[in-house]
Amino acid sequence: MQSTRSKLIELLSDNKDQYISGQRLSEQLHISRSAVWKQMKELEKAGYKIEGKAKMGYRILSSPDTINEFTIQWGLDTNWLGKKVIHLKQTPSTQTLAHQLAQENTGHGTVVIADEQTKGKGRMDRPWQSTRNKGIWMSIVLRPTIAPYLAPQLTLLAATVLADTIHEHTNVRPHIKWPNDILINNKKVAGILTEMQAEQDQIQYVIIGIGINVNQDYLDLPNANYKATSLKLETQKEWHMKQIVQSILEKLENQYLAYMDKGFPNVKDKWESYGYKIGENILVKTLKDTWQGTFLGIAEDGALRVKTSSGETKKLYSVEIDWFKEENKTYVKSPQFTRNER
Amino acid sequence: MQSTRSKLIELLSDNKDQYISGQRLSEQLHISRSAVWKQMKELEKAGYKIEGKAKMGYRILSSPDTINEFTIQWGLDTNWLGKKVIHLKQTPSTQTLAHQLAQENTGHGTVVIADEQTKGKGRMDRPWQSTRNKGIWMSIVLRPTIAPYLAPQLTLLAATVLADTIHEHTNVRPHIKWPNDILINNKKVAGILTEMQAEQDQIQYVIIGIGINVNQDYLDLPNANYKATSLKLETQKEWHMKQIVQSILEKLENQYLAYMDKGFPNVKDKWESYGYKIGENILVKTLKDTWQGTFLGIAEDGALRVKTSSGETKKLYSVEIDWFKEENKTYVKSPQFTRNER
Repeated sequence: MQSTRSKLIELLSDNKDQYISGQRLSEQLHISRSAVWKQMKELEKAGYKIEGKAKMGYRILSSPDTINEFTIQWGLDTNWLGKKVIHLKQTPSTQTLAHQLAQENTGHGTVVIADEQTKGKGRMDRPWQSTRNKGIWMSIVLRPTIAPYLAPQLTLLAATVLADTIHEHTNVRPHIKWPNDILINNKKVAGILTEMQAEQDQIQYVIIGIGINVNQDYLDLPNANYKATSLKLETQKEWHMKQIVQSILEKLENQYLAYMDKGFPNVKDKWESYGYKIGENILVKTLKDTWQGTFLGIAEDGALRVKTSSGETKKLYSVEIDWFKEENKTYVKSPQFTRNER
Repeated sequence: MQSTRSKLIELLSDNKDQYISGQRLSEQLHISRSAVWKQMKELEKAGYKIEGKAKMGYRILSSPDTINEFTIQWGLDTNWLGKKVIHLKQTPSTQTLAHQLAQENTGHGTVVIADEQTKGKGRMDRPWQSTRNKGIWMSIVLRPTIAPYLAPQLTLLAATVLADTIHEHTNVRPHIKWPNDILINNKKVAGILTEMQAEQDQIQYVIIGIGINVNQDYLDLPNANYKATSLKLETQKEWHMKQIVQSILEKLENQYLAYMDKGFPNVKDKWESYGYKIGENILVKTLKDTWQGTFLGIAEDGALRVKTSSGETKKLYSVEIDWFKEENKTYVKSPQFTRNER
């Protein structure tokens, strides 16, 4: 159920260049004209600039640069993605909340976003530092009609959407580290955590969790060995997070529809255009061992393609890659276990 | 945390042929000897036959043929599967409860079982009629360290476990209808619903939901077009459900360990030995169309192998099969869409 406020924002934002009469708003929102006027006052309090003209009606001139349900929807050019936005100032993890909502049957395209996560998580239950108002912490619920084994393709797709968005906004061209970390100057600026719930042959839902370090300074970032950065650190300027969120949602909707229509090939090409260390020597890490090989790219189905030292080309589905030589460790030259790789 | 009662049952059942002294039970359970005596009285009230001999101690002679946490664990020969059992007289769905427990980090091998489900579900959200005390309604939480795309192999494995168990107990050899319905005389006697939650390259948990019609009479079964039956109807006798549950848990633990150790080949062979309509003409149903082909068996990775009318062999991951000609419907001869099949 869309709230009155949300519906009002949608009406105003769909008619950005014209005035909408109080009468029309009253009819479409099923509220009285004085209630419309009250809503406008509240929008102004929330930072919107609103113009009201006698005999013409209302129009919004601008929305505030804060992130919430309404500002994200103001001017958002999507058909279904982000039509329902749940915004929280603070939550343990947008991913956890998105799971709960999905279990309660929230619709395809629901977005959960928070100013701060107190227990943000990355892949493999790693913690993800999510400082208040310094980055974008959101989870998107999708209900794709594809088989569960194809879900990893959606992760690769989401990575290209983040890369495109960052490139377009900052003019810095990021890399994607297999499968879905976004790097600038070898440092991680964004990550994606895709989780799904599925039956044997049907996805029930997928949640795409997105974390982007936007306006952090050095001291806002985790000082672990893993190199993290932010858009601000890499570009020496602050960025409007609301605009980045909107870009992501718009691009994701478009790319998702193209994928559902035409399949994975375009995603593959785009992913490879951002792919990090393609053609180079990498370390392939499985649950059981680590070995060296040459990163060839990704396959038609989204698998990692690696040439082993014995010259064999392998398609791998469930691995991480790295390229830092750690001291006091030796790596085998070829994979020891391959059973779990189709 | 194992309860005192559960631990007591385990101690007694691990030492079925000997007496255990009250002193030893008192020490191992960290309760007083009079508390041990009290526990024994409660077990007797619950239907256990207990022998207590002066200077020797206690032993259980038999456990009641009802299903609950304690009776299932009495004599259960497993190392981890069913060490935690949650039993309910009535619940909407053991699957839903198992999901909740898994989200709250319940361990590998947890079993949820109910006498009655009021909203039992099968695949694709189909209802599953789960009459009180007439069948086995349970869900098993597993945390396998395999990649998500391999999860369907666990479903096929579970189907062979059910088929083995039914065969062993009733001497009737059932069939498995792809992927995981158990049939006797062309009628469905049991079904499996596998659901998982996973990251890109790691399963968080799998829930194997099992429904077996055991002691239903005709009037206890759904009278829909889909032909259902029960073990009782097919064998003209009532069956002890507790023993069947224990067999399933024991076989599942063994087969699971063998699979984790040696992979899918043995599962494939066993599945095919029970496979229904192998070598025959079948209808292949995808989300998009239905076509005819010859069922060749399953592939090394668990996919369905079908020969199309044009002679091509296809591996299919996300389909259902059928063989009843429905009237007023025509089926295309070959698949129209193949994009979503690797």
